[in-house]
Amino acid sequence: MSVHLQIEATRGPARAGKLITPHGEVETPVFMPVGTLGSVKGVSQDVLEELGVEILLANTYHLFLRPGVETVRKMGGLHRFMSWDRAILTDSGGFQVFSLTDLRKVGEEGVAFRSHLDGSPHFLSPEKAMEIQIGLGADIIMAFDECTEYPADAPRARASMELTLRWAERCKNYFEANKYEVPWATESAELRSAGRTNASAPTRADQTQALFGIVQGGMDRELRRESADRTIDIGFPGYAIGGLSVGEARELTRDIVASTLEHLPSDQPRYLMGVGTPEEIAHYAQSGVDMMDCVLPTRAARHGLLFTSEGKLSIKQARYAQDESALDPACECRVCLRYSRAYLRHLYASNELLAQVLNTVHNLHYYLATMRTVRGWIRAGRSPTGAGPRM
Amino acid sequence: MSVHLQIEATRGPARAGKLITPHGEVETPVFMPVGTLGSVKGVSQDVLEELGVEILLANTYHLFLRPGVETVRKMGGLHRFMSWDRAILTDSGGFQVFSLTDLRKVGEEGVAFRSHLDGSPHFLSPEKAMEIQIGLGADIIMAFDECTEYPADAPRARASMELTLRWAERCKNYFEANKYEVPWATESAELRSAGRTNASAPTRADQTQALFGIVQGGMDRELRRESADRTIDIGFPGYAIGGLSVGEARELTRDIVASTLEHLPSDQPRYLMGVGTPEEIAHYAQSGVDMMDCVLPTRAARHGLLFTSEGKLSIKQARYAQDESALDPACECRVCLRYSRAYLRHLYASNELLAQVLNTVHNLHYYLATMRTVRGWIRAGRSPTGAGPRM
Repeated sequence: MSVHLQIEATRGPARAGKLITPHGEVETPVFMPVGTLGSVKGVSQDVLEELGVEILLANTYHLFLRPGVETVRKMGGLHRFMSWDRAILTDSGGFQVFSLTDLRKVGEEGVAFRSHLDGSPHFLSPEKAMEIQIGLGADIIMAFDECTEYPADAPRARASMELTLRWAERCKNYFEANKYEVPWATESAELRSAGRTNASAPTRADQTQALFGIVQGGMDRELRRESADRTIDIGFPGYAIGGLSVGEARELTRDIVASTLEHLPSDQPRYLMGVGTPEEIAHYAQSGVDMMDCVLPTRAARHGLLFTSEGKLSIKQARYAQDESALDPACECRVCLRYSRAYLRHLYASNELLAQVLNTVHNLHYYLATMRTVRGWIRAGRSPTGAGPRM
Repeated sequence: MSVHLQIEATRGPARAGKLITPHGEVETPVFMPVGTLGSVKGVSQDVLEELGVEILLANTYHLFLRPGVETVRKMGGLHRFMSWDRAILTDSGGFQVFSLTDLRKVGEEGVAFRSHLDGSPHFLSPEKAMEIQIGLGADIIMAFDECTEYPADAPRARASMELTLRWAERCKNYFEANKYEVPWATESAELRSAGRTNASAPTRADQTQALFGIVQGGMDRELRRESADRTIDIGFPGYAIGGLSVGEARELTRDIVASTLEHLPSDQPRYLMGVGTPEEIAHYAQSGVDMMDCVLPTRAARHGLLFTSEGKLSIKQARYAQDESALDPACECRVCLRYSRAYLRHLYASNELLAQVLNTVHNLHYYLATMRTVRGWIRAGRSPTGAGPRM
């Protein structure tokens, strides 16, 4: 199997381990920073490496429009295109397309939509979403699903879930028939036939991408159970929980995640999509989720909203104009070790590019450090004394 | 003397050596990147250090408006505020104020102007420009001069030059009376009295800033000679050539620089303000200029214009969309070593923040490498064989 989870410690429902991918191992539970267009806005790849990022998320919809899948494929796939040799996950484009409320039309075959950039017409189907994601070449790709809107009544939630299940099957069929078209599989095979790879060196030639299924079902626990069961019946190497954080109360999100997790295989990766605050990612990791992604740390950073051990901080406030202390005195990121709140406030208030860069680096560090703490907590739970640190 | 030039090699009129400042030594001839508001747009200080930047230029006018000199002074001066322990030079604000054509009024006392940000009224005089620059605390500060407009007739050029000379004297008087008010001189004295500095450790307490004079005189060689002579009579530890690159032909700039250089002391630093292209900075360094600054590498970078060993390159062009080669195959900067033109073109075309960051890093590297080459050429000129490398 191209991607699998190696569980090394458990504590209650939580698990810590490694996600093994064709582009390296990823310590789990993991938070995946979002690099929409093949770049985490403002942060260069070497800084991401230094931060300890082991897997990035990129967006199929955005990359499909710019630079287009053919360019990325010709450049050797997304890893080579963006010079990132660690793991990548792409979403299916479904969520973005469904967000184009006034610009899309859903049918059995797929979704017709217009680009948010220039209004040009496009069509995404399960097969097309697979074709694009194979061309982009992420290690983990996602089934093309319908993200059920909120609120949705019972018939609508069921119909949407059934559509996602039919699409999941079509995704799997297309993927199984075409998965060795991934750019780096070709590259490895070419290198091998040209004698340019060492026989004893690890090669990716026998590996390819992994396609994860997505559980939908709206806010109905029973539908979620059915969606989980029937998605598992189709069979994927990992499962995501989609369709949450779409406007529902946070309590409801927690309930649905908790009840859905019970129906997912315990030996396979579980990915909760689009979540959340630092408290939420810690909570879900402790509940047995292995992977999460969210634009919150990066987007909030660009708006001057910073996560610290003392809570959220809005760096634009005048109260920080002459504050010589570090952004977060308890933080060891390169921003907190070097710059004062006064300087960061000045950069933000003056609309300096560096504000966005430094704020993003700090927030990412904060998210990654949060997950490191949770991983330590899970692993400590297996200590002989049974006493772990307080979270 | 707080700042002086240690000449270690000469080749014709050119000289290579070190500018000794309270915040470290600077290899000369040197190109100084512009950090208008206390930040080189998009580039963090650790990357500037890695690039080998030894001295930065910051703009008095901009810092006076945001965050204001009192904030910078309270934060310990510009070095501490921006966490940059290497050398800094501030301009006097004169050039920016004169650029506010419709918003300023020049008199004998100084210049009344309105902020480009909010229209608020301000006044800069020689004394005020000194007070601000002492509060900012750069290693090298500049006299408040009138940048003569181009074209200017003979009476106007003379009147402007005479005003600059009267202001130069006022700047020197104010500076000499107040130069130990620099924030880090105070800081050193406080640390010393608190017993927190090692007696054997180098301290900056006996050092302070250096004030450089500026030669004006429009495009008239004779006026330039007179301006140089009379500015030298006032007496400064370094001299700048101002009032160029204001719209005149490049040939004329070269003539005026060449003739002005002849009248400047050979043992003191010579600073040509606001110049220029890579070819120009190489030419002027070979002509005996020790210091230069220009927004060109950083501003052009943000517009996708990149300097390479093969000439200028506009990364926005579609021809680079699938170009896998490095931006400049001969360049060893972190951008050229890692990313392809295709990726950089995608980032620029998609308006990604990282485009501005990476483009700026490359252009700065190119400018700094250009000066390294010139320094090598000057030093090689003293080799026993007398044969230096071709430029």
